[in-house]
Amino acid sequence: MIIVMKPGAAERQVGAVLRHAESLGLRAHLSNGDKTSIIRVAGDDRRLDASGFLALKGVDRVIPIQHPFKLASREAQQRDTIVRVGGLAIGGRTFTVIAGPCAVESAEQTLEAARRVKKAGAHILRGGAFKPRTSPYSFQGLGPKGLEILSRARAETGLAIVTEVMSAEDVSLVAEHADILQVGARNMQNFNLLDAVGRQKRPVLLKRGLMSTVEELLLSAEHILSRGNRNVILCERGVRTFEKYTRNTLDISTVPVVKRLSHLPILVDPSHAAGVRDYVAALARASVAVGADGMMIEVHPQPEKALCDGPESLSPDEFDRLMKDVRRIARAVGRRLAR
Amino acid sequence: MIIVMKPGAAERQVGAVLRHAESLGLRAHLSNGDKTSIIRVAGDDRRLDASGFLALKGVDRVIPIQHPFKLASREAQQRDTIVRVGGLAIGGRTFTVIAGPCAVESAEQTLEAARRVKKAGAHILRGGAFKPRTSPYSFQGLGPKGLEILSRARAETGLAIVTEVMSAEDVSLVAEHADILQVGARNMQNFNLLDAVGRQKRPVLLKRGLMSTVEELLLSAEHILSRGNRNVILCERGVRTFEKYTRNTLDISTVPVVKRLSHLPILVDPSHAAGVRDYVAALARASVAVGADGMMIEVHPQPEKALCDGPESLSPDEFDRLMKDVRRIARAVGRRLAR
Amino acid sequence: MIIVMKPGAAERQVGAVLRHAESLGLRAHLSNGDKTSIIRVAGDDRRLDASGFLALKGVDRVIPIQHPFKLASREAQQRDTIVRVGGLAIGGRTFTVIAGPCAVESAEQTLEAARRVKKAGAHILRGGAFKPRTSPYSFQGLGPKGLEILSRARAETGLAIVTEVMSAEDVSLVAEHADILQVGARNMQNFNLLDAVGRQKRPVLLKRGLMSTVEELLLSAEHILSRGNRNVILCERGVRTFEKYTRNTLDISTVPVVKRLSHLPILVDPSHAAGVRDYVAALARASVAVGADGMMIEVHPQPEKALCDGPESLSPDEFDRLMKDVRRIARAVGRRLAR
Amino acid sequence: MIIVMKPGAAERQVGAVLRHAESLGLRAHLSNGDKTSIIRVAGDDRRLDASGFLALKGVDRVIPIQHPFKLASREAQQRDTIVRVGGLAIGGRTFTVIAGPCAVESAEQTLEAARRVKKAGAHILRGGAFKPRTSPYSFQGLGPKGLEILSRARAETGLAIVTEVMSAEDVSLVAEHADILQVGARNMQNFNLLDAVGRQKRPVLLKRGLMSTVEELLLSAEHILSRGNRNVILCERGVRTFEKYTRNTLDISTVPVVKRLSHLPILVDPSHAAGVRDYVAALARASVAVGADGMMIEVHPQPEKALCDGPESLSPDEFDRLMKDVRRIARAVGRRLAR
Repeated sequence: MIIVMKPGAAERQVGAVLRHAESLGLRAHLSNGDKTSIIRVAGDDRRLDASGFLALKGVDRVIPIQHPFKLASREAQQRDTIVRVGGLAIGGRTFTVIAGPCAVESAEQTLEAARRVKKAGAHILRGGAFKPRTSPYSFQGLGPKGLEILSRARAETGLAIVTEVMSAEDVSLVAEHADILQVGARNMQNFNLLDAVGRQKRPVLLKRGLMSTVEELLLSAEHILSRGNRNVILCERGVRTFEKYTRNTLDISTVPVVKRLSHLPILVDPSHAAGVRDYVAALARASVAVGADGMMIEVHPQPEKALCDGPESLSPDEFDRLMKDVRRIARAVGRRLAR
Repeated sequence: MIIVMKPGAAERQVGAVLRHAESLGLRAHLSNGDKTSIIRVAGDDRRLDASGFLALKGVDRVIPIQHPFKLASREAQQRDTIVRVGGLAIGGRTFTVIAGPCAVESAEQTLEAARRVKKAGAHILRGGAFKPRTSPYSFQGLGPKGLEILSRARAETGLAIVTEVMSAEDVSLVAEHADILQVGARNMQNFNLLDAVGRQKRPVLLKRGLMSTVEELLLSAEHILSRGNRNVILCERGVRTFEKYTRNTLDISTVPVVKRLSHLPILVDPSHAAGVRDYVAALARASVAVGADGMMIEVHPQPEKALCDGPESLSPDEFDRLMKDVRRIARAVGRRLAR
Repeated sequence: MIIVMKPGAAERQVGAVLRHAESLGLRAHLSNGDKTSIIRVAGDDRRLDASGFLALKGVDRVIPIQHPFKLASREAQQRDTIVRVGGLAIGGRTFTVIAGPCAVESAEQTLEAARRVKKAGAHILRGGAFKPRTSPYSFQGLGPKGLEILSRARAETGLAIVTEVMSAEDVSLVAEHADILQVGARNMQNFNLLDAVGRQKRPVLLKRGLMSTVEELLLSAEHILSRGNRNVILCERGVRTFEKYTRNTLDISTVPVVKRLSHLPILVDPSHAAGVRDYVAALARASVAVGADGMMIEVHPQPEKALCDGPESLSPDEFDRLMKDVRRIARAVGRRLAR
Repeated sequence: MIIVMKPGAAERQVGAVLRHAESLGLRAHLSNGDKTSIIRVAGDDRRLDASGFLALKGVDRVIPIQHPFKLASREAQQRDTIVRVGGLAIGGRTFTVIAGPCAVESAEQTLEAARRVKKAGAHILRGGAFKPRTSPYSFQGLGPKGLEILSRARAETGLAIVTEVMSAEDVSLVAEHADILQVGARNMQNFNLLDAVGRQKRPVLLKRGLMSTVEELLLSAEHILSRGNRNVILCERGVRTFEKYTRNTLDISTVPVVKRLSHLPILVDPSHAAGVRDYVAALARASVAVGADGMMIEVHPQPEKALCDGPESLSPDEFDRLMKDVRRIARAVGRRLAR
């Protein structure tokens, strides 16, 4: 790391920084500029605590040289991680499509959605059994019963299943039914949950918090990776800004940024970002072209009857049309959809 | 709620909205304007799902009339909630001071901090035993051992204790040692945790998420209240913006906004908002003047040795000086500090 | 507009609202709900001042029904506006490419850039003669001499020219040399400038302010349109958020949002959004797929020697490669590039 | 500045950076770390262009050491700037109160407002003659006639006058009538206007853009200072965030931040920040306590009849009450109001 002293910092303040580095067993190199002293401290920035230096008098800034994540970084692993789920390969040159309703509402609704998205070419079924809801008065999901319905949908259609897990104690239950465990945006920094999904085998779909930087997303991935689970799939789903015409602002740049900094696959969820059905297809098309490894789309047999996220859910027919565009654009950018 | 149709929406689209209301057992009143139809639907907006209407064709917007929170609202309870902790009354005309280190690092450091903040006039000791950390490589707290140190600090100084609880399964353990359970900013929408602290008796200090709206803060309070625990204390600690000179942007307007909309007490944490020691005292002074019910300040016997948040921690001497200002301003705005 | 009274507002407060509407010559319709009165006021919301109502006691909210822009709206004009510049048609089914350096630095640099982007297939040359710079110590542009260089580049290559105008008094000078006048992001709400470009004939490229909503962008377009100039081209160039890996956050949803709300063409500028060369091509590909009417790319013969925006400028070879991708994706989404 | 190479950057890439520095006549010092090379370049960062270095291959980041502003910095001038307007001294230990209506609507309204705010203890009258309005259909101000009304108000009450100037060509006209020229938030980066007010003698009140960083605010002040006008007063008026209960988010930390980095006086405008009358007084109280040099409050004789900003304007009686609080808090923090 680099420590920049305040202009005109006293010599004994510089001395205190050097001694602090020494006390931590670190080599420090001082460079005196015209007015400003700069100290380079060698070592692994991820394990060093910048705040000890920052708290010293006369220190202006502490600048880490290395990225704070390690296992998640491109430097730790040059080649792309490919996450295998049944016969599917997420990452690499394929483009994976996850689709289904926001929530599992009934066996009928879920099976109908599963059949339709399967037929249109989706690879994985989404559907929430445990639902994190801002209001305590909203539908909270069917819970364990919802998981069973998802298992039936898999048995019937052959689609893999991804569903959200909301707390550490539910991890093993959800892992019995799901092929991929989803950590939702609101739980991206629920570190107990990250540790729990990191200590089991199922792949994890980690959604970016609507208030989180990409650096924090990669650090949350690092929590999971560092517990032993290397099958992490990232997902951009829009961040919170001042713009009002969309529910969130899809930060599409996340895709090339993650591709450069990390080896982990990254998907885009345009449904939650837009919050309005009319914009979902355009954003989905952009997601293919920008280089995402897949997308996650809300589809409901009858959006107007959905217990959540109806306004942004595509009908099965709209999803059919979108899939045709997706295939064409995927070809144009050298990607292919499984099957 | 009010449903605004798109301009020129077809009559049968308006009809579908009316029928949907009817199917939910709700009275609907149609008003046809020059170009735009508007439908008022009677009933409790908190229990109605706007998204079912929004998903209907021809609907432009659905506007709720009522606030989405209920038990937390000023309408549900006119008088201020006063939370009693030992002999302390949080809320009303008193101004309560919480102070202490970011993390419990050792018995020595915690007891030294406790003695000094007690002497300066603080009422409650803060200190983290379980620490949510962005990086898996940072100090994660002493855990149960930290809780025991806090208990010793209470026994020795008589200060009440507030400390963070990070997961539902730790609630009962933390509640054995703490007088107030803190739900941290990153867990403000960890609904399993909110439910768990809502089902026990200890008062809860609920910190605003760093990118949560005040409405969402009040909805998270509502989760706790609706489980039966009425002793909720809110805390503003800065939100995330584009500004770089401070770690977060203290949203001081939250205080008058919450005072108008809710009966719950609200504190300000200027330390986490600023992230820089030099700004903490000025923001603390503003917090008294704006009408907060108290403040929460990081104080460390030796900030440069702190294992977390050293750069924003006041030294005990700096805290002494701040407390003198706080008393003077409190008097000027008609508040008093306990003791 | 709809006026929502506070719950339990007094009858005489409701009366005051009705009288205020009457005094403005407006029809008002009162609907009394369980606890909340709602008043619908007929008339053109764009010419009504909501704030007069909002300032009345007992009023909780005033909700406009219509969009605040009119000439810019899809309702005012169903078919897409196509802006003609020489033989080019911006909007409709074509995809238009603007490319060139951030600033005109010399005749040599500009002509070299012009030849290379022309050869790669660009339609319009960009280059700043007047440069708005955050710091007074940065290069401010060549001014009138820069405009002459641009004229030479057009004469030599046949490319149309777009360049920024920074103040009302420069409009006629810039209009002598440029085919399209650019209003930069920092001037999106410089209303004197909007009026000046609205009162002349050249098409205007209006960039979204990095702190502006899409509604405000359309209102700034409305300023220009209402002065008589109907040839307005919008441009999304990234907004300011908390994310740090990119200079700004490209709000790609702006494209489908504008397509739905307005008939004006909209371009995307991925260079300014990203601020980092490595991400520009991916974002450009997304811009084609999302349905933009064109893109604006910074290209410099020697990015490392550029006097501004070198880090985000593509080299001519990189631009060549990008254009191949752009053509392929354009075909996949049913667009074509001129020539 | 410090140049951080990418990990594993090639030796010849490091060489190119050193040669680039040399070609600019700068001394460069190379430090090779474990994996990362760092180059310190001596010289005035304000005049160096970081982007030339950033555009070189292998460069990861360029970190300026100095603040980009100079004349505005505390290092350039240790003691506080005190701006003198008639008998008033803005800055130092006094607290200055500016009050009045959003817009000059008529002689009657303006004079009535002037008398009332004068009587309550305000020092300067505010009122807009030229109004920047988001919509072309809103009231745009009385223009030159408004300026004359302000002159009359000064003649009658003795209050100094501050009013907004929207374009370079209006500067001399406005300067004939006003004691202080206001540059509004939307024009904070209208560099032609900044240059024009910098080249004349009247003090300038520079409002922070609603999505500008404090660094950019100080750079805009630098534009004015570098043209020769040293009488610049800064004003925080709220920034744009995701929070919806207030129109903008008052960034109260700006006050201690500016006090540390700059010698210029800084005021707070709680009226525009809140956008809601009920919150203005609390925020004004916080502004005194936080250490601002003054405040700017919208007061209208009849808020419900105001042509703009009625909802956030205080009535004269409300302003009277606020001034009593302000005096008490000012005393508590060691400030006094003139007269």
